[in-house]
Amino acid sequence: MSFGEIDKLAVSTIRLLSVDQVSKANSGHPGAPLGMAPAAHVVWSQMRTNPKNPDWIARDRFVLSNGHACALLYSMLHLTGFDFSIDDLKNFRQLNSRCPGHPEFELPGVEVTTGPLGQGISNAVGMAIAQANFAATYNKPDFTLSDSYVYTFLGDGCLQEGVSSEACSLAGHLKLGNIIAIYDDNKITIDGNTTVSFDEDVCKRYEAYGWEVLHVENGNEDLNAIAQAVNKAKQSKDKPTLIKMTTTIGYGSLNAGSHSVHGSPLKEDDLKQLRKKFGFDPEKSFVVPQEVYDYYQAKIATPGAKANQEWDAKFAKYQQKYPEQGKELARRLAGELPAGWCSKLPTYTPADSAVATRKLSEIVFQSIYDELPEMIGGSADLTPSNLTRWKEAVDFQPPSSGLGDYSGRYIRYGIREHGMAAIMNGISAFGANYKAYGGTFLNFVSYAAGAVRLSALSGHPVIYVATHDSIGVGEDGPTHQPIETLAHFRALPNLHVWRPADGNETSAAYKVALESKHTPSVIALSRQNLPQLEGSSVEKALKGGYVLKEANNADITLVSTGSEVYLTVDAVKVLAAKGITARVVSLPDFLAFDQQPEDYKLSVLPDGAPVMSVEVLSTKSWGKYAHESFGIDRFGASGKAPEVYDYFGFTPEGIAERAEKVVKFYHGQKLSSPLKKAL
Amino acid sequence: MSFGEIDKLAVSTIRLLSVDQVSKANSGHPGAPLGMAPAAHVVWSQMRTNPKNPDWIARDRFVLSNGHACALLYSMLHLTGFDFSIDDLKNFRQLNSRCPGHPEFELPGVEVTTGPLGQGISNAVGMAIAQANFAATYNKPDFTLSDSYVYTFLGDGCLQEGVSSEACSLAGHLKLGNIIAIYDDNKITIDGNTTVSFDEDVCKRYEAYGWEVLHVENGNEDLNAIAQAVNKAKQSKDKPTLIKMTTTIGYGSLNAGSHSVHGSPLKEDDLKQLRKKFGFDPEKSFVVPQEVYDYYQAKIATPGAKANQEWDAKFAKYQQKYPEQGKELARRLAGELPAGWCSKLPTYTPADSAVATRKLSEIVFQSIYDELPEMIGGSADLTPSNLTRWKEAVDFQPPSSGLGDYSGRYIRYGIREHGMAAIMNGISAFGANYKAYGGTFLNFVSYAAGAVRLSALSGHPVIYVATHDSIGVGEDGPTHQPIETLAHFRALPNLHVWRPADGNETSAAYKVALESKHTPSVIALSRQNLPQLEGSSVEKALKGGYVLKEANNADITLVSTGSEVYLTVDAVKVLAAKGITARVVSLPDFLAFDQQPEDYKLSVLPDGAPVMSVEVLSTKSWGKYAHESFGIDRFGASGKAPEVYDYFGFTPEGIAERAEKVVKFYHGQKLSSPLKKAL
Repeated sequence: MSFGEIDKLAVSTIRLLSVDQVSKANSGHPGAPLGMAPAAHVVWSQMRTNPKNPDWIARDRFVLSNGHACALLYSMLHLTGFDFSIDDLKNFRQLNSRCPGHPEFELPGVEVTTGPLGQGISNAVGMAIAQANFAATYNKPDFTLSDSYVYTFLGDGCLQEGVSSEACSLAGHLKLGNIIAIYDDNKITIDGNTTVSFDEDVCKRYEAYGWEVLHVENGNEDLNAIAQAVNKAKQSKDKPTLIKMTTTIGYGSLNAGSHSVHGSPLKEDDLKQLRKKFGFDPEKSFVVPQEVYDYYQAKIATPGAKANQEWDAKFAKYQQKYPEQGKELARRLAGELPAGWCSKLPTYTPADSAVATRKLSEIVFQSIYDELPEMIGGSADLTPSNLTRWKEAVDFQPPSSGLGDYSGRYIRYGIREHGMAAIMNGISAFGANYKAYGGTFLNFVSYAAGAVRLSALSGHPVIYVATHDSIGVGEDGPTHQPIETLAHFRALPNLHVWRPADGNETSAAYKVALESKHTPSVIALSRQNLPQLEGSSVEKALKGGYVLKEANNADITLVSTGSEVYLTVDAVKVLAAKGITARVVSLPDFLAFDQQPEDYKLSVLPDGAPVMSVEVLSTKSWGKYAHESFGIDRFGASGKAPEVYDYFGFTPEGIAERAEKVVKFYHGQKLSSPLKKAL
Repeated sequence: MSFGEIDKLAVSTIRLLSVDQVSKANSGHPGAPLGMAPAAHVVWSQMRTNPKNPDWIARDRFVLSNGHACALLYSMLHLTGFDFSIDDLKNFRQLNSRCPGHPEFELPGVEVTTGPLGQGISNAVGMAIAQANFAATYNKPDFTLSDSYVYTFLGDGCLQEGVSSEACSLAGHLKLGNIIAIYDDNKITIDGNTTVSFDEDVCKRYEAYGWEVLHVENGNEDLNAIAQAVNKAKQSKDKPTLIKMTTTIGYGSLNAGSHSVHGSPLKEDDLKQLRKKFGFDPEKSFVVPQEVYDYYQAKIATPGAKANQEWDAKFAKYQQKYPEQGKELARRLAGELPAGWCSKLPTYTPADSAVATRKLSEIVFQSIYDELPEMIGGSADLTPSNLTRWKEAVDFQPPSSGLGDYSGRYIRYGIREHGMAAIMNGISAFGANYKAYGGTFLNFVSYAAGAVRLSALSGHPVIYVATHDSIGVGEDGPTHQPIETLAHFRALPNLHVWRPADGNETSAAYKVALESKHTPSVIALSRQNLPQLEGSSVEKALKGGYVLKEANNADITLVSTGSEVYLTVDAVKVLAAKGITARVVSLPDFLAFDQQPEDYKLSVLPDGAPVMSVEVLSTKSWGKYAHESFGIDRFGASGKAPEVYDYFGFTPEGIAERAEKVVKFYHGQKLSSPLKKAL
């Protein structure tokens, strides 16, 4: 590329359009857009993207990891012809605007939701994994269907966050040459100069991870140097590249180089001098010279649309020449699972032997992996415990490692839960119906809380395979025994939190999770063996909750999940001996249950008798479904699992004892279903 | 040091004692203890510690970051004379044992609870900060009260976790020469060889952080090399040191070098050959030669006790020569706050102006910093937003930086929430009554969930200053607006979760948090201004919940927290106009409220009328305190804060509308207090 006046004009336009958004909203971050506008111009000018078809699978991807700089992104999306009008930009940070305070996934051209620092760069690693897998799976010597790059901008904050350390270490190991990360080295964070807390040698650290590291010394102005670095990064085929680009935060502003320009709108006089400095009318805001629109149209939108068209034609031929893979890919691009895939899901009867739900989960993987080529996942170094790998799996590894190849679908995440979760979000965001899953102990999904929240907020239908889900881990003790964990995840909007009780419920959990288009799932699984329940079925469990054991004129309903359901069933017999009639409800997933019709829900948890929940975790999430809760509102204990269960009273006798107390307490009262509420 | 037969015998004893624990329990991790026994022997042999007084402030500290190797730690604690009998070791991993499955803080000689990977090394950074601060504060040219080291063992897992990346980057910046970290480079994790996911250059990464890095090539046997490295590390006064020590996991076992020896007990034949190999009777377990006891007595226990005695004498003289600081330190070592310190806490009347609770929190810091020299804290790069810094604060920085010194009590954590939290735990665990606090946005305390859990489990009374606690952040939008966060933390046992509504409640939150000995606190604070409430007082708020506005024959009780309390008070007037009488309860902290006498609690939430909660977060934690909940069970929205409040109906009118619905719904019913439960 060579650069001239039009490029300077475009850069100035980006700068002014970005600060105008912030000033009009009187809220937002002008500093980073002013510093990074040249990089945005250079990168976007050579990106392959079709603004009229933002989901085109062969596009290059752009991730703004420093999401607070979103005015920059909205400027680029507007200028290059995505569905963002100038009025949208004027509506920056207003309620129901298309330009919210941080970029949100559902908007056209926004590849992932960013803002929480460290996530975007980690998502980019996930996209790069997906791209490498996609290419290794579908490209042919005569058909390159995918060779795209993932570009990401990030700042000091993203580099300080541990989640990015995890993801970038793995990216180096995986030799993902398709990542081009541009680090805005502006030496400023909210607390002031980075010297107050961050004087590590970032370049050396990334070299230690196995990355190619380049440096652009004048990111404020030197378009050629930026372009050369990007070009060099594109040649780095077996290493991800970090381009450290030194810039001045708030370049051009009166407060350039200081942290005051990071997160506060420019004042009117500053805006005016800035416009003047860049040759614009100091009195006018939101100005885009027509030649800038024309430039981006010619440089990006037109060639992007053409490339998309050519790709469509290529893919049509591909489908003819490789009908099987072509059909598969067409299906994936349409976001569909193979017809009848779920007939492969195992079902069970009470005659089948007792098996841990983590093992039942493994059987699911083993049964469906071949049916669902979009399933890609792994575990955070707990493969033999999480049981997340089917026998025939090939590891996703750089071919040169001799340990697998990029067509492999099993990812060795290492002991990096947060990185894993953010990478899963990126894989999902790549498209092609990728179904990303990742295993760890339920207790350590909490390490990934930042990324789990973004799975739910963005609606990435990823799957957290969360084994060792209770005090049932036994000897490992309270550091490994979740208590608050389900209450936490159940309080997250748009998240399935399954805790299946047997094989049928495990299959149901995976059916919902894999068919979900916009909702992630946590599937909490037992370490210990559980019997196959009389009365369970995949179909019933799909409803999230169902009557496992009915009884007429029951004195109490016992509602339970996972490993406590069979204990609760056994408690019914103990209660019967005392003349108390109990019915049992299994409630493996609150969210799926909430989505059922009111009359169904009331048939499960009806008026009349008290409802008592039974679950070896915090009682805090049960208020909506039970009048009384038997749970554990303290930390666990180290010991043999059955002894720990006994210690906390989770035996048929212990459950029956509490149930009896509840029945006596409410004796003579006609209770309403806990579901019946005014609000 | 020079090493002879007794050292070899001691090392073999450690190895066998450790695997014996695991085998007897038939559960645990023999691999790392076998590999790291030589390092444990060398390090402990020169540690300054008094097994009869594990809390001696001048001791060296030992943190087993790879906590699953705890059999090794219990062996050392037993051999060196801490209160661990051989029977305790035989009880490894049994219910109520003194040797639980992972080391727990409350046990003598266990400096911090470890097991969740990456935490221990990060705690060690916190201890090193505390030691540096303590020394800079109390040492005198003629009195060295503290010059101790923090030793930590860690494995590949700890190095892969992002939390350790954050803490270690900061440790390098802070030039903490008192950290000696020994990395067990055994090349094995649960998934197999580290080459499957972790082939970064760890040494280079730590050099990039500013650490001194050494290498011991034969950690299995070369005691001299280990000793030399430790010695060199002790000389590294302005850099923390990482000693990469190459070992064989399960050294001596038939499965040495493989991941099968990581987490499974050795089989009987393996045990026997191992004992034989080390010159022990193959048939006998839990054998400790008397000369090994004698050796550790002579090498550690006796000199440790003597050093402790000498230190006591020195401190007595110190108190004479420096009466003021001596008195202060004696008080701190006794775990006491200064008498009457809390008279400095500000109080407010309704005549005082409306102020954001984050600002009120700043006023608390400003009012008490001088009174409480044990208060040390900072923020994860959000100082001007979290308002965690008093005006006169000196930054905790290496003196050579020119930015502060080690006597400073304000820590610039950088954008490292998880590292900050783990460091806070370490500062607290150091002793001397350190009161560690750390600020970030409430939503990003979730990034630190792994360490917050350990604050609560271990009972470190640290303080999370969690500002921007709701949709009240406005424009930053859903990525920054907590929804599930309070439900999550309220479900954690042993955690105060304050959400004060005004100045008096903010002061109460800090009073409880700072006086707490074994319970951490999250203090959720508003970005937006809130009026000083009629009817609030520090004394009332200390109870966690109280009647803010009483009414006879109320139709409804409205219970609220934080920024919604004044809106709820205003809703009472709207309701009155409709002929509905409402009373208002402020419930700033569930845990403190739970600890009140039953009759008090029932006076706050009495029988009769329905109770409706009002809080702009998930309703999921309210089941215990309210019949109905008005909250937000979806993600937030970007827009001006008042407009976002309005959008979700959190206005006096919106609250009144829901309250009216609730009153109608329960009309004619005599409800029991939500607190009245059978269980």
